[in-house]
Amino acid sequence: MSGIISPSMPVWIVRNAKHGNLAFSNLNEGLGKVLRFGANSPEVIARLSWMANVLAPALRSALEIHGEMPVKPLMAQALHMGDEVHNRNVAASSLLVKRLASPLLKTRTAPADIAAIIDFIAGNDHFFLNVSMASCKAMLDAAHGVAHSSVVTAMARNGVEFGIRVSGLGDRWFVTKAPVVDGLYFPSYTIADAAPDLGDSAITETAGVGGFAMAAAPAIVKFVGGTPQDAAAHTLAMGHITLRRNDAFTLPTLDFAGTPSCIDVRRVVDTGILPVINTGIAHREPGVGQIGAGVTHAPLACFTQATMALASIVSS
Amino acid sequence: MSGIISPSMPVWIVRNAKHGNLAFSNLNEGLGKVLRFGANSPEVIARLSWMANVLAPALRSALEIHGEMPVKPLMAQALHMGDEVHNRNVAASSLLVKRLASPLLKTRTAPADIAAIIDFIAGNDHFFLNVSMASCKAMLDAAHGVAHSSVVTAMARNGVEFGIRVSGLGDRWFVTKAPVVDGLYFPSYTIADAAPDLGDSAITETAGVGGFAMAAAPAIVKFVGGTPQDAAAHTLAMGHITLRRNDAFTLPTLDFAGTPSCIDVRRVVDTGILPVINTGIAHREPGVGQIGAGVTHAPLACFTQATMALASIVSS
Repeated sequence: MSGIISPSMPVWIVRNAKHGNLAFSNLNEGLGKVLRFGANSPEVIARLSWMANVLAPALRSALEIHGEMPVKPLMAQALHMGDEVHNRNVAASSLLVKRLASPLLKTRTAPADIAAIIDFIAGNDHFFLNVSMASCKAMLDAAHGVAHSSVVTAMARNGVEFGIRVSGLGDRWFVTKAPVVDGLYFPSYTIADAAPDLGDSAITETAGVGGFAMAAAPAIVKFVGGTPQDAAAHTLAMGHITLRRNDAFTLPTLDFAGTPSCIDVRRVVDTGILPVINTGIAHREPGVGQIGAGVTHAPLACFTQATMALASIVSS
Repeated sequence: MSGIISPSMPVWIVRNAKHGNLAFSNLNEGLGKVLRFGANSPEVIARLSWMANVLAPALRSALEIHGEMPVKPLMAQALHMGDEVHNRNVAASSLLVKRLASPLLKTRTAPADIAAIIDFIAGNDHFFLNVSMASCKAMLDAAHGVAHSSVVTAMARNGVEFGIRVSGLGDRWFVTKAPVVDGLYFPSYTIADAAPDLGDSAITETAGVGGFAMAAAPAIVKFVGGTPQDAAAHTLAMGHITLRRNDAFTLPTLDFAGTPSCIDVRRVVDTGILPVINTGIAHREPGVGQIGAGVTHAPLACFTQATMALASIVSS
């Protein structure tokens, strides 16, 4: 990553070192009552204001002192430490604290603010998620626009629809209804309270991490459900719908095989195996926030539409 | 842990919260050229001096501000993050930085010293090892002295002999020749350069972590050799020579089973399965330091001697 922009909503800037393209993500607020899951109480707004006025300027200065921080090695190390860098980022967030603490001390930030910043990051095991998302986006954007390519370059949901973008099919999104997630709900909530699947974070699965790298993160089943065997099985299943393994991201429990990456829409349609996504679950009403997490799948309809669109290009 | 004593050799103090007994360990210097593996050059002495004069007083103050830090939950979390807390402590060391950075900032330590301290800890993935050792010692000392008990309460090596202590056999050590380790050597070194097995750190295996918890740490095979399957097999094999599983330390890849703990000397003799130990390897000449790491085993003779001693008590 190369810096932080901080007006009212500060964002991480991640640069694809090989292709030069940039990607962005806001800074992670934590779990539960947070704006991205629909909460908007005074405590949520106060936290966002502190993040914009204290956290972001300090991190920006720390990153200037540190210099560009290659993200892929951090993600790779976290995959060796039980993260899948989507719904489990405890190792990656700790590695980030370890990297940034010393440069933070060299900024002009007041010691009390530095302590508050470290407490905030140390208290939010998902802090790295947004760096992971922007990094995955930076990798995938470089793969977009290859003529006739059937590789998926984005999967996203907005609480109503689920959409994918395909490398050889330009800016068109192939959309269908977003699924409701049968996951693990926080105490007092059930599936009846859930909004349909929502968020940009499926960009991590699109890049071959998250649900695709669950073999790296057996302990995540306590958060998203299932067994450690299920976690490894998800990774193995994704091998059937992807074109290759990413040797930059290896999985110790699978004998250091790379993560399955480059989803091919044709393979999804051929096999009927749907991309697995580790996801957070938002309450259907505004103001509540996150109420659970679980494992869901990208809907088949997006992939059949995209495959038909590819076929019509090739046959025309 | 409850504090730090810092004269010329500062030590961690770990208190068994239930039984009140204390255990101690010095602070980890890192890998390679370090005093505990026999290196003694000016850079080694300078580092030790900095550790005594800067690092230890700052950590002591930070721990006073933090208050007692329960170590078992830290170790348990690290086992979910790919450590076995003997030869792989990257997660535990990161968690320790995350916990201590903010209290460090509240001490009177100069910011430049705090930055140097965080850089030192962040740059030494083995920093947590000595906390782990003292914690294991504190747990095991509480199990020592149970009449007729065949449970091993210490395993240690000094580069010449390997010895064990057994709960029901008082202060007697059962010793035999220490093995030479056929491990992974750092570049330019071979087994011909190695001293016989050495160090206090097998206290971790005695407590059911380290080699006994290798199923938690598949990535460690890059450091000690073997395959991820071997790592899991070591943990499963240790189930045959231990009396129970420690539910405080669970292993995600084995469906959250506890680590095999309480080595029974009779079971070792009955099965011929020897306790597995992840170990560092020292050069046989003074001044060089650590030259490799590997997997070794406690020698059978210690266990046969102890079993015969137990038999003579029971029959007398």
